[in-house]
Amino acid sequence: MQNARVLLVIDLIGVFVFALSGATAAVRQRLDFFGVLVLSFATASAGGILRDLLIGAVPPATIQDWRYLASALLAGTVTFYWHRSIERLHNPVRVFDAVGLGLFAVAGTQKALASGLHPVMAAVLGMLTGIGGGIVRDLLLARVPLVFRPETELYALAALAGSLFVCVGHWLGWPEMPTAIAGAVLCFALRILAMWFDWRLPSAQRDGN
Amino acid sequence: MQNARVLLVIDLIGVFVFALSGATAAVRQRLDFFGVLVLSFATASAGGILRDLLIGAVPPATIQDWRYLASALLAGTVTFYWHRSIERLHNPVRVFDAVGLGLFAVAGTQKALASGLHPVMAAVLGMLTGIGGGIVRDLLLARVPLVFRPETELYALAALAGSLFVCVGHWLGWPEMPTAIAGAVLCFALRILAMWFDWRLPSAQRDGN
Amino acid sequence: MQNARVLLVIDLIGVFVFALSGATAAVRQRLDFFGVLVLSFATASAGGILRDLLIGAVPPATIQDWRYLASALLAGTVTFYWHRSIERLHNPVRVFDAVGLGLFAVAGTQKALASGLHPVMAAVLGMLTGIGGGIVRDLLLARVPLVFRPETELYALAALAGSLFVCVGHWLGWPEMPTAIAGAVLCFALRILAMWFDWRLPSAQRDGN
Repeated sequence: MQNARVLLVIDLIGVFVFALSGATAAVRQRLDFFGVLVLSFATASAGGILRDLLIGAVPPATIQDWRYLASALLAGTVTFYWHRSIERLHNPVRVFDAVGLGLFAVAGTQKALASGLHPVMAAVLGMLTGIGGGIVRDLLLARVPLVFRPETELYALAALAGSLFVCVGHWLGWPEMPTAIAGAVLCFALRILAMWFDWRLPSAQRDGN
Repeated sequence: MQNARVLLVIDLIGVFVFALSGATAAVRQRLDFFGVLVLSFATASAGGILRDLLIGAVPPATIQDWRYLASALLAGTVTFYWHRSIERLHNPVRVFDAVGLGLFAVAGTQKALASGLHPVMAAVLGMLTGIGGGIVRDLLLARVPLVFRPETELYALAALAGSLFVCVGHWLGWPEMPTAIAGAVLCFALRILAMWFDWRLPSAQRDGN
Repeated sequence: MQNARVLLVIDLIGVFVFALSGATAAVRQRLDFFGVLVLSFATASAGGILRDLLIGAVPPATIQDWRYLASALLAGTVTFYWHRSIERLHNPVRVFDAVGLGLFAVAGTQKALASGLHPVMAAVLGMLTGIGGGIVRDLLLARVPLVFRPETELYALAALAGSLFVCVGHWLGWPEMPTAIAGAVLCFALRILAMWFDWRLPSAQRDGN
């Protein structure tokens, strides 16, 4: 009981932080208030919704429980009215986003494993849970997803590392909770280090040949 | 029997009108004939398909019954060959689109409620049924959905008002059919008034600070 | 057993070829290595995933079996490092793509028929299996799908012809395997002829009135 409540609170914080990123992008593109709220909820929930559709867990959790929607709409409203303050908090927001990424990737992997998927595919779905929201945010803004672009520091790989860690632990029979925490920390640390040291993936060499 | 037939005819008219909007947008972007037909069907059916996927009602109704496809393809073909006339009918088409919006929002809400969703989320899915087709139309045309932009008069909010009305009626135990009709009329009236009086949602203030 | 293995190998080749097209497009848009891999897998699997979601066959086959992912990632990696060679193989790749289109359309139709869909809708889903990957590829690259544009030679229609052929055969009780092969060959031949003779669909006449 206590445990489930802690998980829900963590989840709602993850939703809030991801929604901030969606709402900020929407404000920058001058969407109207409704557009900002949709982007908030879509960014926060699309990764989990995609995962749930793919494993057949319908209705998806974020559709069943109105508190996810409420958390996302709160983030969207705050961003709409105080976006200048939110943008000034750029660095804290990125740190929280890294927390959300770790939480979502790990929770997504656990849910995919529990549905009986092959561990490799469970790790892929865990990563998708983490990065899917940002992809849908960028699709709704008609731009190539940031997570695919060479100017973004390691993001998907950090999520994948956390997800794979959980899968390996599952395979080796490690206890679930510590494994999950370690996986989330791994993802978080990789993402923070990548931002700090500017780690990026290359794009293919195209010029001068 | 009689009743179900009336509902089907109403539904097919809604599909036809939404398909007109998809086809018109496709012709403007100079898609080929196939592209125009896809945009017709996608615009008419995507909202309902998304709702059905999210509540686990598969195969979605518009995939099971070929008459929805036929109605959408008819609208697409008509638009392809007579788009100048369709564009001249701009205002009637917008009125019919408002009818379709009300019908889809209300029917979507009822279906979501019947699946056992929380009323708040059922209203959200009802709204999604109404606006999802236009969102997918714009994604397929690689542009930011009109429904998120400040230059569009109230659209999603009108759908949401109709959907919420149905949810409140459901909660208070009102008889289903009159509630549905009133919800659709509410949505339609709001949309028409918004077009008449140019009601729009603001975008966030960004300049001059 | 032998038969199932042949089908799997054919499927994996189809995945590989479609992944090449996704990866090539991603390299051209200068995505990073991760983006290239995602585009590879998405292009190869999205058509089948959409079909499986719509008929309720979850988890989709390409999510259940890691070999599809492996085949797509191999194609993506090869393209990332040797894209100049791949681009020089432009014509062979287009021929293989036509093979993949036929295989996917026919296999998709069969799966949709087996799920009990109306034959007309099964043909539509078969076509979607063939063309859905390319549509998602283009959405992820924020551009209007090639398959909707008048400069693309017949593509979706070729897939639809193969799919309809399978549906007619199913309706008339023809033996399954020869019908499937003939349908795939029909699709392949139409696509090759379309490229050879530059068959295209018109876009609507817009100018000069």
